[in-house]
Amino acid sequence: MGKHTITFLPHNKKIEVPSDEVLLRAAMEAGVHINASCGGEGVCGKCRVIIEEGEVADGVTEKLKKTDREKGCRLACRSRVTGDATVRIPVESDVDPSVLTTNIPPRQTARIQQMDFEQLKKKGLFIPPVEKQYIELPEPTVQDNLADTTRLVSYLKLNHDEHRLVVRLPVIRKLPDALREEGFGITATIARPVHEGRKSHIINVEPGDTTDHNYAIAVDIGTTTIYGQLLDLVSGEVLAEHGEFNGQISYGEDVISRIVYAEKGSGLQKLHEVVIKTINDVVSKVVRKASVDCDEISSITLAGNTTMTQLLLKVNPRYLRRSPYVPASTIYPPINAAALGIDLGDHVTALVYPAISSYVGGDIVAGVMGSNMYRTEALTLYLDIGTNAEVVIGNKDWLACAACSAGPAFEGGGIQFGMRAAKGAIQDFSLDPISLEPMLVTIGGVRPKGIAGSGLITIAAVMFEMGVVDSQGKFNRDLETDRIRESEGIGEYVLVWEENAGIDRDIVITEVDFDNLIRAKGSIYSGCQTLLEEVGLTVGDVEHIILAGGFGSYIDLEKAMAIGLLPETDPDKVTYIGNGSLMGCKMSSLSNHIRRDVVDVTRKMTSFELSETGSYMDHYVAALFLPHTDIGLFPRLKSRMDARKAGAEPD
Amino acid sequence: MGKHTITFLPHNKKIEVPSDEVLLRAAMEAGVHINASCGGEGVCGKCRVIIEEGEVADGVTEKLKKTDREKGCRLACRSRVTGDATVRIPVESDVDPSVLTTNIPPRQTARIQQMDFEQLKKKGLFIPPVEKQYIELPEPTVQDNLADTTRLVSYLKLNHDEHRLVVRLPVIRKLPDALREEGFGITATIARPVHEGRKSHIINVEPGDTTDHNYAIAVDIGTTTIYGQLLDLVSGEVLAEHGEFNGQISYGEDVISRIVYAEKGSGLQKLHEVVIKTINDVVSKVVRKASVDCDEISSITLAGNTTMTQLLLKVNPRYLRRSPYVPASTIYPPINAAALGIDLGDHVTALVYPAISSYVGGDIVAGVMGSNMYRTEALTLYLDIGTNAEVVIGNKDWLACAACSAGPAFEGGGIQFGMRAAKGAIQDFSLDPISLEPMLVTIGGVRPKGIAGSGLITIAAVMFEMGVVDSQGKFNRDLETDRIRESEGIGEYVLVWEENAGIDRDIVITEVDFDNLIRAKGSIYSGCQTLLEEVGLTVGDVEHIILAGGFGSYIDLEKAMAIGLLPETDPDKVTYIGNGSLMGCKMSSLSNHIRRDVVDVTRKMTSFELSETGSYMDHYVAALFLPHTDIGLFPRLKSRMDARKAGAEPD
Repeated sequence: MGKHTITFLPHNKKIEVPSDEVLLRAAMEAGVHINASCGGEGVCGKCRVIIEEGEVADGVTEKLKKTDREKGCRLACRSRVTGDATVRIPVESDVDPSVLTTNIPPRQTARIQQMDFEQLKKKGLFIPPVEKQYIELPEPTVQDNLADTTRLVSYLKLNHDEHRLVVRLPVIRKLPDALREEGFGITATIARPVHEGRKSHIINVEPGDTTDHNYAIAVDIGTTTIYGQLLDLVSGEVLAEHGEFNGQISYGEDVISRIVYAEKGSGLQKLHEVVIKTINDVVSKVVRKASVDCDEISSITLAGNTTMTQLLLKVNPRYLRRSPYVPASTIYPPINAAALGIDLGDHVTALVYPAISSYVGGDIVAGVMGSNMYRTEALTLYLDIGTNAEVVIGNKDWLACAACSAGPAFEGGGIQFGMRAAKGAIQDFSLDPISLEPMLVTIGGVRPKGIAGSGLITIAAVMFEMGVVDSQGKFNRDLETDRIRESEGIGEYVLVWEENAGIDRDIVITEVDFDNLIRAKGSIYSGCQTLLEEVGLTVGDVEHIILAGGFGSYIDLEKAMAIGLLPETDPDKVTYIGNGSLMGCKMSSLSNHIRRDVVDVTRKMTSFELSETGSYMDHYVAALFLPHTDIGLFPRLKSRMDARKAGAEPD
Repeated sequence: MGKHTITFLPHNKKIEVPSDEVLLRAAMEAGVHINASCGGEGVCGKCRVIIEEGEVADGVTEKLKKTDREKGCRLACRSRVTGDATVRIPVESDVDPSVLTTNIPPRQTARIQQMDFEQLKKKGLFIPPVEKQYIELPEPTVQDNLADTTRLVSYLKLNHDEHRLVVRLPVIRKLPDALREEGFGITATIARPVHEGRKSHIINVEPGDTTDHNYAIAVDIGTTTIYGQLLDLVSGEVLAEHGEFNGQISYGEDVISRIVYAEKGSGLQKLHEVVIKTINDVVSKVVRKASVDCDEISSITLAGNTTMTQLLLKVNPRYLRRSPYVPASTIYPPINAAALGIDLGDHVTALVYPAISSYVGGDIVAGVMGSNMYRTEALTLYLDIGTNAEVVIGNKDWLACAACSAGPAFEGGGIQFGMRAAKGAIQDFSLDPISLEPMLVTIGGVRPKGIAGSGLITIAAVMFEMGVVDSQGKFNRDLETDRIRESEGIGEYVLVWEENAGIDRDIVITEVDFDNLIRAKGSIYSGCQTLLEEVGLTVGDVEHIILAGGFGSYIDLEKAMAIGLLPETDPDKVTYIGNGSLMGCKMSSLSNHIRRDVVDVTRKMTSFELSETGSYMDHYVAALFLPHTDIGLFPRLKSRMDARKAGAEPD
């Protein structure tokens, strides 16, 4: 079998592959990103490419319309190489990292809740888990020739009240020369135990006084994006922040596709390597931005969902997707960061946030820590809508959590023109009540390329309130507009005609999209209801809603309530904390007290499997309407609709 | 500069080296061993080679006699390559590994003291630090979907009273598949903490019941030889034993030469690598001999002197040889064996015996543990004469120790024809009182090649008692024998004429040899005296002498007392424990109680720097005679000599 050269445009990357190689794999090999939500199983239809020169075999499924096929469109995951070819990755199949680096300001319809660092300081909780101490030791003599480690440990014990110190081998290796470089003046980096009474570790020594250079890294490992912060452990400040797309995206967009990939051959190793590579990219960026010496970084704290955590630690996630959904572990011991492949000094320990279950991971625990909900009196609903949706309900006395099988609709999955909150994504929408012509706002103010999650909510809410779709998400075909039409029997509304679009097709929202949206929002709402019911409460008892995740910042609260995604409450009771996972990592990097609390919180959080909870199915079915079977749960919406109806009726 | 080919005989190994390369280095590169006691500084004169073809530059020092020079003898460490050459390594410069593998039975003039393993069992002390437990876990269900580690830990807590368990990352990686391989029946390997109340670690899991396969490795890292044992942790038996020369020999025979080598360029890395290589050779041999699966080895315990320990752990020994002689550390944390380079499973922790000081190392602490002296009432003198000599005195209540700067005379160092206890070494000796002709016994019964340490003691004792040498080690030149002669003004006695020798020269013992012997034995005896005096005791108070080290097994006790090496006591009070260091490693591999005792013993042992102890110099000077200035300390010898004198006098 011969070799063929495939050229990927617009990157103009070339790669030689054997006959029959799958195009998606060739792209991976070439380092070219193509969205592939389903991990290459041909079901999501996201990985469309255009064959500009040459030919490929197969690659045609019912996901591609006839007109697209004729234009040379193929699904990369189903196309096999048969000869040299030039393949264009269309803009909507390409990952656009600009969204992470350009500052798209959040809409901030919800109040922003920030960690109150000053309060942390006032309460005396600002004691980082890793501290530096400078000491000047007496020089040894023939009469006093204790071993170097004994000299150090004894001095710290006598003069700094440091007991139960363990000196690690790399420190023993460095110590003799380090001590003698600055006349026995030395800075020791001491890592505190999580549990009081356990041993502290001397993890590093440096000649002279370096106590004012002590940094930490906090990392949120999202399925889609990895965000990192560089923290100053002396001042408590964030010195730099950076985000990158998780390199694993090329191997499947959602966790299930990644698990499937990890199960094949060396898939686990590969996914582990690429996530470590992304983390290293993030670390090197924040280090450069803040102009600090990488060797002065003393700790790294990471949080991610259970699958991301297992892939990070190279623990096969095989059983996470199989009933009864058992994680390998929920708690991970501290791990040497360098041994894991992270480009930090040999003395740096990686602390990984513990998970609760297969579907409620360390990112959620970190969010609970970062949001402070575990220390408040108020009954709080914490909602993280990302690639999946997780719910935590509780306060300082108890915590209950569950994962909702919402699917990735709010991140663009299952929505024909759905896309991430990147440039060109429709984010805001309104509708002229007479002409039914839309007004669109895109991120970055460019020609529309697709629909962001926040845009989807707004579109659905507006269309529902205006009667363009009914409570089941079906278009009113009697309305007089050429924007509502049918395609293969399914109703759709043309948001953008091809000539105005940033892509080469009409951008539409379809009844299938509405179906998926309704199922997504229904699963979240009914998840909250079920969880509350399990602890004897109702939606009305919730005193505070915290929205976490990138998505939360763009959401129009009234619209989200109008479609029944959020319980209808006073918008003032809703706050937005941004990346809760990253905030939790930051908190426990800065405060060993909070790190200790993590253990308690993990023990306290009761996980519910919604599918195993009797009332869930009823709640879910009832929630499969806009906004809900019981519109009484949404009194403000009801009165608006009643008013509109009254206005529309002939007097 | 050109390249030249050097051929080493008898190995017939060839190597290409550039002009000016030192011959000793060329030999190292070629993997050819040449004795080099001084690490290549040209002072020991051991590395003599014969240039059979071609020429080398330099290589001639006062260490070589004129006649030897004319035969083509050169010192390899001082010779520079100038062209192609064929170099023969003479038999006495070659390391003979046969001594380690062929079983030369010890003379056993002292009683052999063995570890009483049965008693250990009876006392309930046979609890290895690493144990295996087989358990059958309930399979998870949707209602009971605890994480795999939580399931394991909870079960062990509830049903096996195992608390404070830590599960390591490699175990988390293995656990999910391991659990499901044999229907949730699994064997967990649990490593106990040294200190009670600390955490136990689950270091390995295996599907099914493997509890009857649990092994440990014990290793003594001698400067010269590395011995290993494979232990069955179920029966407590030694399944196999093996010794190899420490690969570091090529880089210097004694610890000082190795430290010097370690300070140069990548010397430390090199010495670390070669000792690890030797350990791996030993491990693979014992594993093969015992036919066990290497993966079933759960622990490795190692002991060596302070320099060997620092080289093993890649800790620069630079300051060990510089006043005030400070080790980097005396205690080392448990270390992952695989990370250190040892070819064992990733779950195996290497435990390294703690040292007391720069010159009293882990091998001596291990010997104290192995000999049981730390638990007896009797005042015991523990003496390990190897490349250096260390003394421990004490009992269950107190322990004092010191290193004697005896030098390597008993291992052949500083003795013109000195050699290790290998084939051809003179081990026993007697003298015809009339003719003064010798009778020699060599190890292996072959032609003599040199003098073993035990032979040296016997020769010295016999010659002294017969009046061939005086108490200062000077030959009586008036005696009528052509065996006593002078060479360059120094008296010598021809032990073997060239025609009878296994080498191509007369084998002699010289007054310089006697000088070195007297200084060696004097330093040991005066060391014991000083140590005893420091604790208010005298040589007469010693109730038990324990000899450790390979040397001890060949020693003729009466002769050792006759030259003043050992205090004159009842030979029944002397026992021989062989390799005390290896025995200590074995003991703490089999009993976690003993491992705990190590910590106490280390704290209890008071180290004395003899050179800093006021009375030492006086004791030393007084001991620089055969047997001692004060012959009253050796009453039995005195009466023998008086009797001989009386017999010799005319009636």
